Amino acid sequence: MLKLITMLEQRIEKLRKILVEKNLDGFLVSNFFNILYLTGFKTLTENEREAWVLVTTKSVYLFTDSRYLNIKYQKSNIKNTNQILNIFKTMLITPEKGLIKHLTEIIEEEKIQRLVFEGDDLKVNELQRIKDHLTNIELIPFEKLIIKIREIKDEVEIENLRTACKIADDCLEDIVKIIKPGMSEKEIAFKIEFWLKEKGHDLSFYPIVAIDKNSAIPHYDTRADNNEKVKKNSIILIDYGAKFKDYHSDTTRMIFVGKQSDEVVNIYNKLLEAQTKTIEQLKVDNNPVSVDQFCRQLITDSTDSTDYRLPSYPHSTGHGVGLQIHEFPKISFTSTDILLPNQVVTVEPGVYSDNKWGMRVEDTVLIKKNNQIEVLTKFNKKFLIFNS
Amino acid sequence: MLKLITMLEQRIEKLRKILVEKNLDGFLVSNFFNILYLTGFKTLTENEREAWVLVTTKSVYLFTDSRYLNIKYQKSNIKNTNQILNIFKTMLITPEKGLIKHLTEIIEEEKIQRLVFEGDDLKVNELQRIKDHLTNIELIPFEKLIIKIREIKDEVEIENLRTACKIADDCLEDIVKIIKPGMSEKEIAFKIEFWLKEKGHDLSFYPIVAIDKNSAIPHYDTRADNNEKVKKNSIILIDYGAKFKDYHSDTTRMIFVGKQSDEVVNIYNKLLEAQTKTIEQLKVDNNPVSVDQFCRQLITDSTDSTDYRLPSYPHSTGHGVGLQIHEFPKISFTSTDILLPNQVVTVEPGVYSDNKWGMRVEDTVLIKKNNQIEVLTKFNKKFLIFNS
Repeated sequence: MLKLITMLEQRIEKLRKILVEKNLDGFLVSNFFNILYLTGFKTLTENEREAWVLVTTKSVYLFTDSRYLNIKYQKSNIKNTNQILNIFKTMLITPEKGLIKHLTEIIEEEKIQRLVFEGDDLKVNELQRIKDHLTNIELIPFEKLIIKIREIKDEVEIENLRTACKIADDCLEDIVKIIKPGMSEKEIAFKIEFWLKEKGHDLSFYPIVAIDKNSAIPHYDTRADNNEKVKKNSIILIDYGAKFKDYHSDTTRMIFVGKQSDEVVNIYNKLLEAQTKTIEQLKVDNNPVSVDQFCRQLITDSTDSTDYRLPSYPHSTGHGVGLQIHEFPKISFTSTDILLPNQVVTVEPGVYSDNKWGMRVEDTVLIKKNNQIEVLTKFNKKFLIFNS
Repeated sequence: MLKLITMLEQRIEKLRKILVEKNLDGFLVSNFFNILYLTGFKTLTENEREAWVLVTTKSVYLFTDSRYLNIKYQKSNIKNTNQILNIFKTMLITPEKGLIKHLTEIIEEEKIQRLVFEGDDLKVNELQRIKDHLTNIELIPFEKLIIKIREIKDEVEIENLRTACKIADDCLEDIVKIIKPGMSEKEIAFKIEFWLKEKGHDLSFYPIVAIDKNSAIPHYDTRADNNEKVKKNSIILIDYGAKFKDYHSDTTRMIFVGKQSDEVVNIYNKLLEAQTKTIEQLKVDNNPVSVDQFCRQLITDSTDSTDYRLPSYPHSTGHGVGLQIHEFPKISFTSTDILLPNQVVTVEPGVYSDNKWGMRVEDTVLIKKNNQIEVLTKFNKKFLIFNS
C-alpha cells in the first residue's frame, strides 16, 4: 500500500515535470485510464465522465460525485482510503456545483493561465462548454501525453503484469486438457472466460479462438457466426489474456490436435525460431522499427517445403501492454518510439496461409536494464501434439 | 431480414428528414451505437473509430478498413450481407486513403456545404484534423440527435427487447433456485453472468447483487470488495439484465430468504403498489416529470409501522432502454422528454433505509398506442420467501 502511494506520487511528479518544462499551469485529465493511472481512482464506466482530475503545479484535484465519494475507494483495488486520499484534494460534484464551477474557483485561487486538456479524449461539446465559462485562460490541447508516460512501467505495475501473465499461463494449462474434437471456438473461448471469472479475475479481451482455416484470419472474431469445431487433426490458434488489478496480459499459442503435416511442423518451428530470436533482439536493439524489420526478415528469409519464401504478416510485430491492451511502444515499421527498460511489450509474428491455416506465437515481455529481458508469459511454446 | 432492411431504411429516412428540414447537406456519424443503429454495422470496439458513417441527402456511406470489409457482416447479427450492403456505399479506409480523403471527394461530388457532426461524440483533435483539411465547408456540431430518434423503437427493436426481457426472466427463474445461505454477492452475480453466456447471450450490465445493508446503497457495486454473504433471513436486491442482439433488458427484484419482519413485508408491499400503479400511469400520462412525481408521492404518502412517512429515493423513476442501457426518455424531475408509443422504459422506485436494507422493484415496459402498455419483464413481483 505504501509502495502504491509512492508510485502514484512518482507518476504525478512525471506529469508535473512536463508542466513546468513547458511553462503550463495545469493539466485537466478526462481519460478514464489516465485518471486510474494517476490516482488509482476507478469509476464504474469508461465513457460517462464520472470523474475528472486536475494536476496543477501545487495540487492534484479529483472531481467526482457522491456515489463515489461516499464509498470512496470501494471501486478500486485500493483498500486503505485515508492514506491515498491525502495525495489529492477530492472535490464533490453536485447538480449545483459541477466541474466548471470548481475549475473557476481553482483557476482563480491558483492563478492558472495556461491549462492543458486531453485533445484526444475531450469531446468537442465538452470543450465548448469549458470555453464558454473559462474565458480568461488559454486552453491548450495535448495528445498522447500521459499514455507516453505510461509506457514505462513502475514496480507496482510490473508486479501486476507479471501476475496477470502467470494467471493466463495457469488458465491455458487447464484449458488445453479439456480441448477435444467436437468443441467449438465459442465453447473454448467460454471455458477461458469461465476459468478466469470463477477465480475472480477477468479477460484481458474477448479471446480469439480460431480453428483451422479461420486461424488464417489474423483479426478473427470468435463471437462471429462461423463457429468452427475442433476436428481430429486441427490447428487451433488461441490469442487471449488475463486481467489482474486492471493490468492486461497478452499471449498467443498454437494448439495442435492429432497428427500434423511435416509442412505445418516445419513452418511452425521457423515461426517459433523467429519469435524467440526477436525476443532476444530486444536485449540489444532499442529501435522498434528495426526490431520489426528483424523479425519480418527472419520470416521472409525462411522457405516452405517447395522453396517458396514465407510471407510477411499483415500486422505489427508487437505493442506495449498495461492498463490497456494496446499501449506504447509500438513495434512496427511506423513506430516513432524507443525501446527502454521497464517497458512491457508483446512479440507476436505470424505466418498465414489463406483458407488453410494461420499460426502466430505471442509473448508478453518485460524489457529490463543491462540488456536483460524477462518473458512474462511462460506457457510452453514447443511444437506439441495435445491429446484429443 | 427484409424487415430489418426496411427498418434500417426508415431509420435513415428519419435522420434525412431532419437534414432537409434544417437545410443541412450531410451528417457525419462517429458514435458506435448510432452507427450500429443506422446501418446494423458493428465494429469490434466502442472507442477505436473502426467505422464512420456519412448520411447525405442522396447516399449513406460506410467507411471502414479491410478487417471489416473482408469479412463484412461477420461481426453483426446480420447474415445476408449482400442485401444489406445495397443500402449504403462501403468505402475502404487504408493507410493511404483515410476518412478525410474520402470525405474530400464526396464533398466535392455531392457539393456538400453544411456538414453536421456529433459534438457529443467527436474528440477535439478529430475535429481539428477534419477542419484542417475540409476548409471550405461549414462544420456544425449537433448533440443528441440520433439518440433522440432512437427513443422511439421500431418493430425489430421491440422484438429484440422483448426477447432480452424474456431471457432475463428465464435466467432469474433458475438463479433463485440455487440461492442459499453462505453464497456471496459475487457468486450470485457470477451465476447470472454464466447462465447467460453459456447460452450465447450476454449481460446488459454487470449485475448489482446487494445483500442486507448493502442493498441500502442504490448504486452498489458488486465488484467492490465488500462481498456480503446470504444469511438465514437475508434481503437480496438483484438489479440485472440480459442482452439480445445488442438490445438490453433491465429488471430489479427483491429476493427474501427466510422469515422477514412485518415492517419489511409492509414496506415492500407499499413499494410494489407504487411501482405497479406508476406502470399503469404510463397509460394516461405522457409527461415524465409528472410520472416521476406521481411515483414519489405514492412512496412518500405511505408510512411505516411507527407512522413515519417513507423517504423518497435518490435516483430517477426510470429511463429508456435500447442499444444502450440508459437512453431517452428519462423519467425524472429534470426530464424534458415526452412519453410516446413505442418507447421502452424502466419503472424503478425504491425505499432505502441506511445501514439496514434497501428495496427496489424495476420492470422494463413498452408504451403502446391507445393507452396500452406491455410489461416486458414478467418475473414474479409478489412478496415471496424463497427456500433457503
